Amino acid sequence: MIVALKPNVSPEKQERLVEWFKEMGLGVHVSTGTYQTVLGLIGDTTKVDMDLVGSLDIVEKVSRVTETFKCCNRKFHPDDTVIDVNGVKIGGGNFCIIAGPCSVESEEQIVGIAKAVKEAGAGMLRGGAFKPRTSPYDFQGLRAVGLELLKTARRETGLPIVTEIMSATDLPLFEDVDVLQVGARNMQNFDLLRELGRTDKPILLKRGLANTLKELLMSAEYIMASGNEKVILCERGIRTFSDYLRNTLDLSAVPMLHELSHLPVVVDPSHATGIAKLVPPMALAGTACGCDGLLIEVHNDPVHALSDGAQSIKPDEFAVLAKKIKAVREASL
Amino acid sequence: MIVALKPNVSPEKQERLVEWFKEMGLGVHVSTGTYQTVLGLIGDTTKVDMDLVGSLDIVEKVSRVTETFKCCNRKFHPDDTVIDVNGVKIGGGNFCIIAGPCSVESEEQIVGIAKAVKEAGAGMLRGGAFKPRTSPYDFQGLRAVGLELLKTARRETGLPIVTEIMSATDLPLFEDVDVLQVGARNMQNFDLLRELGRTDKPILLKRGLANTLKELLMSAEYIMASGNEKVILCERGIRTFSDYLRNTLDLSAVPMLHELSHLPVVVDPSHATGIAKLVPPMALAGTACGCDGLLIEVHNDPVHALSDGAQSIKPDEFAVLAKKIKAVREASL
Amino acid sequence: MIVALKPNVSPEKQERLVEWFKEMGLGVHVSTGTYQTVLGLIGDTTKVDMDLVGSLDIVEKVSRVTETFKCCNRKFHPDDTVIDVNGVKIGGGNFCIIAGPCSVESEEQIVGIAKAVKEAGAGMLRGGAFKPRTSPYDFQGLRAVGLELLKTARRETGLPIVTEIMSATDLPLFEDVDVLQVGARNMQNFDLLRELGRTDKPILLKRGLANTLKELLMSAEYIMASGNEKVILCERGIRTFSDYLRNTLDLSAVPMLHELSHLPVVVDPSHATGIAKLVPPMALAGTACGCDGLLIEVHNDPVHALSDGAQSIKPDEFAVLAKKIKAVREASL
Amino acid sequence: MIVALKPNVSPEKQERLVEWFKEMGLGVHVSTGTYQTVLGLIGDTTKVDMDLVGSLDIVEKVSRVTETFKCCNRKFHPDDTVIDVNGVKIGGGNFCIIAGPCSVESEEQIVGIAKAVKEAGAGMLRGGAFKPRTSPYDFQGLRAVGLELLKTARRETGLPIVTEIMSATDLPLFEDVDVLQVGARNMQNFDLLRELGRTDKPILLKRGLANTLKELLMSAEYIMASGNEKVILCERGIRTFSDYLRNTLDLSAVPMLHELSHLPVVVDPSHATGIAKLVPPMALAGTACGCDGLLIEVHNDPVHALSDGAQSIKPDEFAVLAKKIKAVREASL
Repeated sequence: MIVALKPNVSPEKQERLVEWFKEMGLGVHVSTGTYQTVLGLIGDTTKVDMDLVGSLDIVEKVSRVTETFKCCNRKFHPDDTVIDVNGVKIGGGNFCIIAGPCSVESEEQIVGIAKAVKEAGAGMLRGGAFKPRTSPYDFQGLRAVGLELLKTARRETGLPIVTEIMSATDLPLFEDVDVLQVGARNMQNFDLLRELGRTDKPILLKRGLANTLKELLMSAEYIMASGNEKVILCERGIRTFSDYLRNTLDLSAVPMLHELSHLPVVVDPSHATGIAKLVPPMALAGTACGCDGLLIEVHNDPVHALSDGAQSIKPDEFAVLAKKIKAVREASL
Repeated sequence: MIVALKPNVSPEKQERLVEWFKEMGLGVHVSTGTYQTVLGLIGDTTKVDMDLVGSLDIVEKVSRVTETFKCCNRKFHPDDTVIDVNGVKIGGGNFCIIAGPCSVESEEQIVGIAKAVKEAGAGMLRGGAFKPRTSPYDFQGLRAVGLELLKTARRETGLPIVTEIMSATDLPLFEDVDVLQVGARNMQNFDLLRELGRTDKPILLKRGLANTLKELLMSAEYIMASGNEKVILCERGIRTFSDYLRNTLDLSAVPMLHELSHLPVVVDPSHATGIAKLVPPMALAGTACGCDGLLIEVHNDPVHALSDGAQSIKPDEFAVLAKKIKAVREASL
Repeated sequence: MIVALKPNVSPEKQERLVEWFKEMGLGVHVSTGTYQTVLGLIGDTTKVDMDLVGSLDIVEKVSRVTETFKCCNRKFHPDDTVIDVNGVKIGGGNFCIIAGPCSVESEEQIVGIAKAVKEAGAGMLRGGAFKPRTSPYDFQGLRAVGLELLKTARRETGLPIVTEIMSATDLPLFEDVDVLQVGARNMQNFDLLRELGRTDKPILLKRGLANTLKELLMSAEYIMASGNEKVILCERGIRTFSDYLRNTLDLSAVPMLHELSHLPVVVDPSHATGIAKLVPPMALAGTACGCDGLLIEVHNDPVHALSDGAQSIKPDEFAVLAKKIKAVREASL
Repeated sequence: MIVALKPNVSPEKQERLVEWFKEMGLGVHVSTGTYQTVLGLIGDTTKVDMDLVGSLDIVEKVSRVTETFKCCNRKFHPDDTVIDVNGVKIGGGNFCIIAGPCSVESEEQIVGIAKAVKEAGAGMLRGGAFKPRTSPYDFQGLRAVGLELLKTARRETGLPIVTEIMSATDLPLFEDVDVLQVGARNMQNFDLLRELGRTDKPILLKRGLANTLKELLMSAEYIMASGNEKVILCERGIRTFSDYLRNTLDLSAVPMLHELSHLPVVVDPSHATGIAKLVPPMALAGTACGCDGLLIEVHNDPVHALSDGAQSIKPDEFAVLAKKIKAVREASL
């Protein structure tokens, strides 16, 4: 951490600041220039509050040289993490399409879709049982019943299941789920993250609508610091001024996250765009820039879907798309 | 709700859509123009999924005429809501400053600050016991111990206490707290909102960093629809491209929320700016545009505060500010 | 255009509003519901000021059904526009890579790069002579001299040249340039757009940092309404809260613009990311989602480039990338 | 400027980098830590391209300690700039309301409004003659005729006139205008800024919709570096995800700009909100946080205004507001 002092700071004040840093157990390297003195802090600076130091009247500017995330930092763990979900792998060269409806609606629906997406090449089944909705008057999901239907679909197809958990108190219900999804709105629900860090299940962590890559990594850090290293990051669109689409899919996050972290990164083009016909081009774009997997909403009857039908594609469209994804992936490697 | 169809839709397709709306219990008024046919939906359209309708191949555009929030909507409740916290009122012409440190650190600290802010004119005491922090390695608050210290400060001063709750499972610990605060990161933690709706305590609901006013009102609606009508809305800065300050304080939200809703609106200039010397001007600005109260961080020793010291002002600065707030409020009425 | 009135508007007020619309030459279709009356305006509503109507005290909500852009609207011109630049085509199935340095620096530099990118498959040469820089103290380009060097490079390679124009008064200098580029900062410099509409040269119009797709199309409309239909749209990243990269490349704009307009759409991954090693993955992503071309910065000595070296790739990296682009394009069609 | 190197950089590479900086005429102070080496650059680092240095393979991070703006920097010019427009002063404790219609429409209109706002306390008259409009089909202003009408209103009232210039080629027409306004869309039209820097007229420079405070100051720097030091900065709302209002008024820019620069800062609540009834509260808020003046749209017949009627207040509302502004200003000092 670098602390640049204002010009003409008195030696006493400077000394007091240096002492304060030393009390925190840090080494301090003072470099005195003609115009300006700069302090270099050495040691574990993750506990130093940059905002606080920056607010001191003798300080001009503070900047961090090292990142505050550790467990998920590629610098300390150069090899890609590979996550194995009942034999289906993701990360480190393993690519996986996770497909299924936004909401689980009935046994017929979920089993039908599961069979269709498996045949087309999906590696896991997604489906919402507990649904976070902006309005309390909207459909909130089949909840526990929905989880049972997902397990039925898994029995019928062998596909591991991925579904969203909204509260740590629901954890007992999710015991037999393969991958737990944390939704964008809960990305900084730190109590939930900490509890998920105490399980041994892979966690699919969605980036919040207005969260930076660093915040996403710090949320992964909450899970990993509690003991669970199986985290899959997910880019699903951010909130910007742009108003034609629901969100702005930030695909450059994919290569950037790969640079910063060893964790697998998947892309969700369905929630990002909110429009079914944009799902195929954006799925291909995500693939071309190197994501480790995709989360794609598929529904056999999008017009009558209980939620988010607007962004679902049909099984036959998914089958065509899955083939193109494979071809684009091979072309881009 | 207005549904404009694409040009040249076949009468059969149009008829099928009209029937579908009627099955939902809606009245449909068809208005056929030379170029375009427009359907007007009458009845409870809150359950119609706009995204879904907009995605149909025969639909050009959908727009809602009525808002989907009810309990907090000023149209259905024209009078301002006044919330009474042990005799301290907020809303409907009652103005209240809620002041205190970011984190509760010790009995001496919290009691000292409580006495100082009370003397300067604060109506309630704020202080964090459970702290949401971006990094798992940052100070997470004194938790239960912090809550006890807040109660001590209340005993010493009579000031009602306001503090953040992060998880519904902690509710028993908060039984004797006067106002429960929901932080920006939990604004769409719907499970938490629903549980708080089952209590009878006033809830201070902070706007999320990237949430629209409508989403804030829908989150208030979650609490109110569960039975608790005592909600105080709080503007605390939104996330934008602007990079000099931590967040962008969106003060026009104050008069706009007053237009849309009957709930009281308070402003938090401390978290929005993150810089102590900007707190006074922005507190005055919030007052001048009609907010019902302010949330101001005050610390007796900002440089050694365990969190967010950079944005805290000192008790003597607060006393000067409180006087100006009073004067500006009178001048702006 | 749909105008929904507030409940309980007096018949006189409603009649006056209807008359006002009729005076504008519009047909008005009144649809009276139990709760609400809705007016449907028929005719050329592009001249109706939505904001003004929305502000009337008897109006609840206004919404437009038809778009206000015409010349560039796919509805009125379903076939893709193909732009022919001295035999090099772009749009309507024709793909073109435009490559070259950020700034023209010397004859040796620009001719060397031109030869290298031509050999690797580029269809046009880009290079800045007039440079818009945030700071008046930064390098502003070689200006007229730079234009001459670009023409030399064209003579040596046959590649058409693309370069930015910042002011209509400079037009005489650009007489012999093949494609005129309008930079992001000038996207709404309407005087410049109008003047460019009076030329017969293809215009590469970059999206502004905070402009919506509709605004981009309206700026294209300025050029086209003045008589020049040869406009190429360019997505080059938008400004968001996200802070790891210079801008956020909004790739979903590509399929969305293709939906709305018949104009070709190119992507500039170099300016969007500002980081050389992110250029290849984002170029491939843009290709995979269907863009008609790419704008890629290539420099033989990025470390000593006079501007934007950080985002330039080297000729040999470009050659590898160009091959992958071709493969990804074929795989995604 | 601070350059932190990556761990384990070879001494040769480090030496080459140090030499390169020295070639630029900079002093280099090398501080070698256990883990990391940090270079401190001394001298005029405004010409060092941070992006370029940051992209070098041996560099971990670069940060600037000093700002790149000089003429407008308060550090080099601690006293407030006071701008005198024909005897009307703004800045340095002088407060001025600039009021008038969005567009000049007729002599009767502009003279009538000028008299009304003067009587209510306005210090200058605003009115658009050249109008930048998103659509080429919208009203573009009365242009030269409008300028003449403004001068007529000045003759009748003595109020100095403020109006927007869109292109340097129009400068001869503006010879007799008192203050030239640069609109938000032209904030980075550098050719225009440079030309305005060669005049001796006060320039009202509006912040662009997505421009940072630093970029605003750099644009002021373009004008000042060309010789014209009379620049008034204007906050008029930024573009964010928030969708209830046209823009988000960023009032914390006011105290922050005062911190960074000695130039006067005015606020435009009319364009920022786009809604007439939000203009008074936001004008008061701007006043309370210390702005040096306000730009307020006033129209005698907002419903029939040719542009932006939705955001104009009437002369009698302005008179009430002007009194409150005075009271709030006194209360907040």
